[in-house]
Amino acid sequence: MIETDILIIGAGPTGLFAVFEAGLLRMKCHLIDALPQPGGQCSELYPKKPIYDIPGSPEILAGDLTKNLLKQSEQFQPGFTLGERADTIEKLEDGSFIVRTNKGTEHKAKVIAIAGGLGSFEPRKPPLEGIEKYEDKGVNYFIKNPEIYRDKKVVIAGGGDSALDWSIYLTDIAKEVKLIHRRNEFRGALDSVEKLRELKNEGKIEIITPAEVDALHGAEKLEGITISSKGEEREIVTDHFIPLFGLSPKLGPIANWGLEIENNAIKVNTFDYQTNVPGIYAIGDVNTYPGKLKLILCGFHEATLMCQSAFQHINPGKRNVLKYTTVSGIDGFDGSRKEAEKAVVEAI
Amino acid sequence: MIETDILIIGAGPTGLFAVFEAGLLRMKCHLIDALPQPGGQCSELYPKKPIYDIPGSPEILAGDLTKNLLKQSEQFQPGFTLGERADTIEKLEDGSFIVRTNKGTEHKAKVIAIAGGLGSFEPRKPPLEGIEKYEDKGVNYFIKNPEIYRDKKVVIAGGGDSALDWSIYLTDIAKEVKLIHRRNEFRGALDSVEKLRELKNEGKIEIITPAEVDALHGAEKLEGITISSKGEEREIVTDHFIPLFGLSPKLGPIANWGLEIENNAIKVNTFDYQTNVPGIYAIGDVNTYPGKLKLILCGFHEATLMCQSAFQHINPGKRNVLKYTTVSGIDGFDGSRKEAEKAVVEAI
Ligand SMILES: Cc1cc2nc3c(=O)[nH]c(=O)nc-3n(C[C@H](O)[C@H](O)[C@H](O)COP(=O)(O)OP(=O)(O)OC[C@H]3O[C@@H](n4cnc5c(N)ncnc54)[C@H](O)[C@@H]3O)c2cc1C
Ligand SMILES: Cc1cc2nc3c(=O)[nH]c(=O)nc-3n(C[C@H](O)[C@H](O)[C@H](O)COP(=O)(O)OP(=O)(O)OC[C@H]3O[C@@H](n4cnc5c(N)ncnc54)[C@H](O)[C@@H]3O)c2cc1C
Repeated sequence: MIETDILIIGAGPTGLFAVFEAGLLRMKCHLIDALPQPGGQCSELYPKKPIYDIPGSPEILAGDLTKNLLKQSEQFQPGFTLGERADTIEKLEDGSFIVRTNKGTEHKAKVIAIAGGLGSFEPRKPPLEGIEKYEDKGVNYFIKNPEIYRDKKVVIAGGGDSALDWSIYLTDIAKEVKLIHRRNEFRGALDSVEKLRELKNEGKIEIITPAEVDALHGAEKLEGITISSKGEEREIVTDHFIPLFGLSPKLGPIANWGLEIENNAIKVNTFDYQTNVPGIYAIGDVNTYPGKLKLILCGFHEATLMCQSAFQHINPGKRNVLKYTTVSGIDGFDGSRKEAEKAVVEAI
Repeated sequence: MIETDILIIGAGPTGLFAVFEAGLLRMKCHLIDALPQPGGQCSELYPKKPIYDIPGSPEILAGDLTKNLLKQSEQFQPGFTLGERADTIEKLEDGSFIVRTNKGTEHKAKVIAIAGGLGSFEPRKPPLEGIEKYEDKGVNYFIKNPEIYRDKKVVIAGGGDSALDWSIYLTDIAKEVKLIHRRNEFRGALDSVEKLRELKNEGKIEIITPAEVDALHGAEKLEGITISSKGEEREIVTDHFIPLFGLSPKLGPIANWGLEIENNAIKVNTFDYQTNVPGIYAIGDVNTYPGKLKLILCGFHEATLMCQSAFQHINPGKRNVLKYTTVSGIDGFDGSRKEAEKAVVEAI
């Protein structure tokens, strides 16, 4: 059982910044995310694109924002349960909560902060008979650890950024990479398209278009696939089939946690972004209130006010005076200390 | 008469970011600040100190934050009335407002955003008889334009950062610099103290401590001062006397604008941070509402929600769909355009 002060569901920008604000108040955080990496929409949907409205950062790539947020909170040593979806919640007699994931991992916390954005990112699966049987036995919808493909035969399907970028990445690792797409045209960054063309010309990757996967084969695990291209069937022997057809967010199980929902978002007050269940907060894209804007900078504000209230929830009656980071410095849970240089008082 | 869409009173971090958010919605801004430079508390009180809680910026000097915010909004070409205090407000029949400063400058706008922080920064003046007579005629409480001291004789009084830093700066410009302080010890950054010691040893500055200024002299303008040091009186011939005894913020005239005030701050709702007077908003440190935290990151959020509401106030009934900067890019009022690189759609 993982125990923490604040359990944050969703490791997008809002959840990551909440770790920092909680740390300032000496509360420990653990994050659960269905994705294999932190960053939410920023890292999954547009890591290489610039954001212009992060205050004080006139232009920052979404992937760099994620890196900066991880760096900003690292001294508060957050825990992570990645690649798992928070499914059920239970309130104990002492007021704390137990959250279980789809893989059975259990987490106990005094406060729950739902920072689930548009929902848990779930892969769009191709409609192939029996595909579930091969999941994690050759079929993968995410690439968590590229090393598992070392010296293996891999078929990737898809026509967007993820399919392009992972195909490029895996040519260095896998024994053989094939990329299949149902159209002739791929859609992605110019340099990815050019790089792939180069790899194709060097014979490092086979590109098969227009083509579709018709069937999967294998006894215990995936051994091959059948594709059709230009009216012809073809058998391909492969260890892995990785359909990268995008992820679609689903509020999913959280919708059944007894929280007030409006327009697919969780209703909160604007005092501390608490839901109708005391001790459960909702921050960032996942919440709604009058005037709500689904922007990253709003999630930062909400996370900050939420932490003040969570502190009171965890330490009832204890006084908490707002301190400026500039004046008080920062004491990490890892023993580190950051602070402004002290002024000296000296005769000249 | 200066005309604009949103007149922002206070050019601190909140007011500066409001320029950017207003620009995204095609509204022009003009800012008034009592200080000679933008940045509010960040540039006036702690420009060289690090802030750790700007989201996505793990450590940033307050002065650099100001620079970044200016850069982020520059394409929306804000106007500035600096070194003047907004004193009076008048509502016209058509719903727009006229704001006058203590120097008589008039501004007309459809929306007023008060981002006045802890109030207008007013210098602490030394209690010297007749000092008003010499103000701007030799006596200055701020340094707006260092060039006016070129080849002049200057006496600075004070024992903190501003006194130290401006003394160092002016030794390169003025004919003669003297620094007077009523204690022997100065309080400031170690490198400023060391630099000043060096300048003193090189004979580039005279440091007189402990000493106090007793009187100012001069017919039309300042010609000299009398000081007492260790029980002895001394006459100093000088063109300028610059007491840098710090600035204290005063909500001042805004308190008489008919706005609901609570704990020296302006009451607003959390829907759009509007005051009890329609068309007048209050954002950042200057406002108060349940849960309010006087933090920079909260001012950013408030400025953003305020701009959405101001848009409706200025364009009643017009629909405004929230756009992501990443997706839509940014069109500056100066004709500039920023945008993410477009994806290509090509066969490989
Ligand atoms: C193309 C694009 C461009 C954008 N441009 C901008 C912009 O310029 N400026 C701006 O401010 N915003 C922009 N946005 C929106 C911005 O990305 C979101 O506002 C932001 O990501 C919200 O952050 P969040 O942390 O609240 O949620 P998300 O980033 O959505 O993260 C939520 C995370 O929670 C996880 N999750 C949800 N439910 C569960 C569960 N039950 N179990 C486990 N994990 C779960 C999800 O997998 C996800 O990783 C853009 C969005 C897109 C798609
Ligand atoms: C030493 C110190 C350290 C701090 N550290 C942090 C930190 O680590 N993190 C954090 O988030 N915050 C910190 N703060 C607080 C932070 O600086 C403020 O929250 C922030 O500056 C508020 O911004 P603002 O734009 O609302 O107001 P301000 O920065 O106060 O700016 C308001 C401006 O309005 C002007 N003004 C007011 N009335 C008038 C008028 N009638 N006419 C003309 N001009 C007017 C003032 O002159 C001023 O320049 C710190 C503050 C101090 C003093």
